[in-house]
Amino acid sequence: MNKLVSLSHMTQEQVRGLIELAQRMKAGEISPSLKDKNLILLFFNPSLRTRTSFELAMQQLDGNVVTLNTGGDTWTLEVDENVVMDGSAVEHIKDAARVLGRYGDAIGVRAFAKGEDWERDRQDPIIGSFVTYSGVPIINMESSLYHPNQALADIMTIMENCGTDVRGLPVTLTWANHPNPLPMAVPNSFLLTTALFGMDVRFVRPEGYDLDPMVMERAEKLCSDAGGRLTVTDNVEEGYGGSRIVYAKSWGSLDYYGNRNEEKKHRKKLTHWIVDDEKMAFTDGALFLHCLPVRRNVVVADSVIDSPKSFVYDEAENRLHAQKAVLYSILGE
Amino acid sequence: MNKLVSLSHMTQEQVRGLIELAQRMKAGEISPSLKDKNLILLFFNPSLRTRTSFELAMQQLDGNVVTLNTGGDTWTLEVDENVVMDGSAVEHIKDAARVLGRYGDAIGVRAFAKGEDWERDRQDPIIGSFVTYSGVPIINMESSLYHPNQALADIMTIMENCGTDVRGLPVTLTWANHPNPLPMAVPNSFLLTTALFGMDVRFVRPEGYDLDPMVMERAEKLCSDAGGRLTVTDNVEEGYGGSRIVYAKSWGSLDYYGNRNEEKKHRKKLTHWIVDDEKMAFTDGALFLHCLPVRRNVVVADSVIDSPKSFVYDEAENRLHAQKAVLYSILGE
Amino acid sequence: MNKLVSLSHMTQEQVRGLIELAQRMKAGEISPSLKDKNLILLFFNPSLRTRTSFELAMQQLDGNVVTLNTGGDTWTLEVDENVVMDGSAVEHIKDAARVLGRYGDAIGVRAFAKGEDWERDRQDPIIGSFVTYSGVPIINMESSLYHPNQALADIMTIMENCGTDVRGLPVTLTWANHPNPLPMAVPNSFLLTTALFGMDVRFVRPEGYDLDPMVMERAEKLCSDAGGRLTVTDNVEEGYGGSRIVYAKSWGSLDYYGNRNEEKKHRKKLTHWIVDDEKMAFTDGALFLHCLPVRRNVVVADSVIDSPKSFVYDEAENRLHAQKAVLYSILGE
Repeated sequence: MNKLVSLSHMTQEQVRGLIELAQRMKAGEISPSLKDKNLILLFFNPSLRTRTSFELAMQQLDGNVVTLNTGGDTWTLEVDENVVMDGSAVEHIKDAARVLGRYGDAIGVRAFAKGEDWERDRQDPIIGSFVTYSGVPIINMESSLYHPNQALADIMTIMENCGTDVRGLPVTLTWANHPNPLPMAVPNSFLLTTALFGMDVRFVRPEGYDLDPMVMERAEKLCSDAGGRLTVTDNVEEGYGGSRIVYAKSWGSLDYYGNRNEEKKHRKKLTHWIVDDEKMAFTDGALFLHCLPVRRNVVVADSVIDSPKSFVYDEAENRLHAQKAVLYSILGE
Repeated sequence: MNKLVSLSHMTQEQVRGLIELAQRMKAGEISPSLKDKNLILLFFNPSLRTRTSFELAMQQLDGNVVTLNTGGDTWTLEVDENVVMDGSAVEHIKDAARVLGRYGDAIGVRAFAKGEDWERDRQDPIIGSFVTYSGVPIINMESSLYHPNQALADIMTIMENCGTDVRGLPVTLTWANHPNPLPMAVPNSFLLTTALFGMDVRFVRPEGYDLDPMVMERAEKLCSDAGGRLTVTDNVEEGYGGSRIVYAKSWGSLDYYGNRNEEKKHRKKLTHWIVDDEKMAFTDGALFLHCLPVRRNVVVADSVIDSPKSFVYDEAENRLHAQKAVLYSILGE
Repeated sequence: MNKLVSLSHMTQEQVRGLIELAQRMKAGEISPSLKDKNLILLFFNPSLRTRTSFELAMQQLDGNVVTLNTGGDTWTLEVDENVVMDGSAVEHIKDAARVLGRYGDAIGVRAFAKGEDWERDRQDPIIGSFVTYSGVPIINMESSLYHPNQALADIMTIMENCGTDVRGLPVTLTWANHPNPLPMAVPNSFLLTTALFGMDVRFVRPEGYDLDPMVMERAEKLCSDAGGRLTVTDNVEEGYGGSRIVYAKSWGSLDYYGNRNEEKKHRKKLTHWIVDDEKMAFTDGALFLHCLPVRRNVVVADSVIDSPKSFVYDEAENRLHAQKAVLYSILGE
């Protein structure tokens, strides 16, 4: 394995292999070593779970790890080629990537969408530059487009509870309300990965909240290749009916991209998009999942997230185990 | 030992056991291992000594450690139950605590008093939530109410110099001036712990600078249980007379809580509350202690802190040894 | 070796010994251990390369390392003696240094010039105080005056490519334009170290951009002692002619010190001070070096930094190896 940008670029068997490795590590059956390996974690955005779980994962594998928080504006990188750098950017991304590639055996990169121009954000320029220039494996810790380590923990949690034969499993990915328009990396990766496994995927969202057309089309294709099904609906009964998993997430509308205040006004009409007991009652005793952090009683009712059917803490814990499998697959042997 | 919130919740024998373990580690008599144990340090406020000494302590014990600086506003946590989280808080503290409890075998938490509403601050809501929800041992790295790791190093330093039989030892805790109203965790913990050991405690402060009534009453009770004595006075001769230890600290007045500018004006009248040679002359050759950082020539005169009787650097060093004892008592075996 | 403040305080043989040790470590011939040694890295200014390479260096040597980012204003230190600390400084530098010296076996310090008052900055007060008060070896990670770890990697890179017999080697240190006045530590250290090795040093800069007179005089003296030569010129042909190394760097003018806006205006006339193919054509196939980060197409043309003659990434990588040699020389055995 020479990088991890998106699970949807891998085969179902490769993803399954990572999850099996993660389960064996979680069970303590194997404790492989990455001694003398060097991991650099580069955060352009804040992090709690991702940072903690990656740092501990590398330490538990006996490897070396350095974390760099670039903060908002502290380290502005030029991304365009051939420019005269007399503005605010102090370093070209190609130089930063090449240098860090000399120090690290792998680099984890977190760089959210900027939220202003989707045509630019959907190119995923920062992680793309690191892949191109660093010369070492890059691990996506959430980019504009994808959050593969989250999706890996998500599927691992589903398999722990529903078995590993997940083809045709009815799974609901539902949009939820939130005070702010959020990035799409998590729903993109969840949709594409459940599609890769041929689940019976129900994508439930209000009008205007489809994901990028490239993602929707690819999910459709992956589903049909794997013997699954993709249903897109705004009908709660259709979306939740008989489902075994409810995965909630809020994200911003492409119709309002770069236009936060307009979208905030529009969202006032969407407050009923909360996962509550009434909606869960349509399901076949579905588990509740969410990547966290979550706005309680906006995205999900306390009664759902605090119920025995909520597996959000297992899901968060599985980040650690899944990432150890990723690190070992990339840096091991 | 399953947590460390305040030394005053422990018995004198338990605290003594920690100090003996710390002394054996300092002397290099034992070097126990916490290999494969995971410590998370969560700072809601900045830190120099506490962060450095905890990180090094865990590394010296061969354990894994991750430090998270939440900064001022970067990660606003909801503390109240059952609220609709449509404001600025991005995560409920119960979710953060539960997730970090899945990654760490213990969590250190620093969360100062906010300084606006004492009725709220004195509930110590952040550390309390971590104790309730994380499911793992919590180590208080300074909360609104207590700073037990500091008090442990303080008592250790006293015992190194005055012997371990400290019952009846005359000890002065004196308020000192400072440009800003500071939190009360350090004086609370020093007062309660010297009381727990039955010392002859002199609490010297200007009118209006008593600690919280709960703390004052508990100190009185602990003193009398342990065969010690508590004297509260604003008289320097009474407070310093024959003392063996002078512990200086500034803190804010409860009369002015949340009212910084009014208190600052009032403090202009209190500039004589500095520990200087004149006051030290009343003592029985007392040692000078302070938790640092300290405002020189405001809290203490250069001539006192730079004298051979000043043990502030030993006291700071003992933070490291004391915390190794705490970590081993909680995570060892 | 009991500290590293500037290479110019060492003999040529001592510096050569460090480079040889670094080369043996880079080649994997030796892998010494600093197990149970404790390094503290204290950054008053941001860092990418220095922080990453020092943290990894210490981890690769099996030692303990703690990094403290003081940020801009988060931890204001008093540097003057005998002051009444009732202003904004929360701690005296002597107390911070003494405490950190109790925790660490060595302390790395980065503290740039403040850029307001050169008479004050040229005293290098922060690193000087740490040397005076900490009681442990101090490693300069870039101060107002010097950046010895950079210079060590620079000379190492020159020797890798031009052989170790560098006396008389024609080397060009050229000023370059930049949107902002930058500190002088890098050119100071490169000039003094190439002088220490008796190279044929050409210092090329526009009028008004000489380094501090103490540095210029010391470089002159070191050059003549070591059988080298120092040429100061604003003539490109004289400066680049027959050179084997072109080292580019921008720095602020002492004529405008503390007067950023005036200098920025003046610099508009100096945009031709860029390292481009035309200037490189005067050299004897010179290698291009720069400490990074670099403003492309302002300091250096893409065609130069991206050519096979550019060794800037080797130079950055050598930071890691050179620093391992420094750490082992100070903390080893």
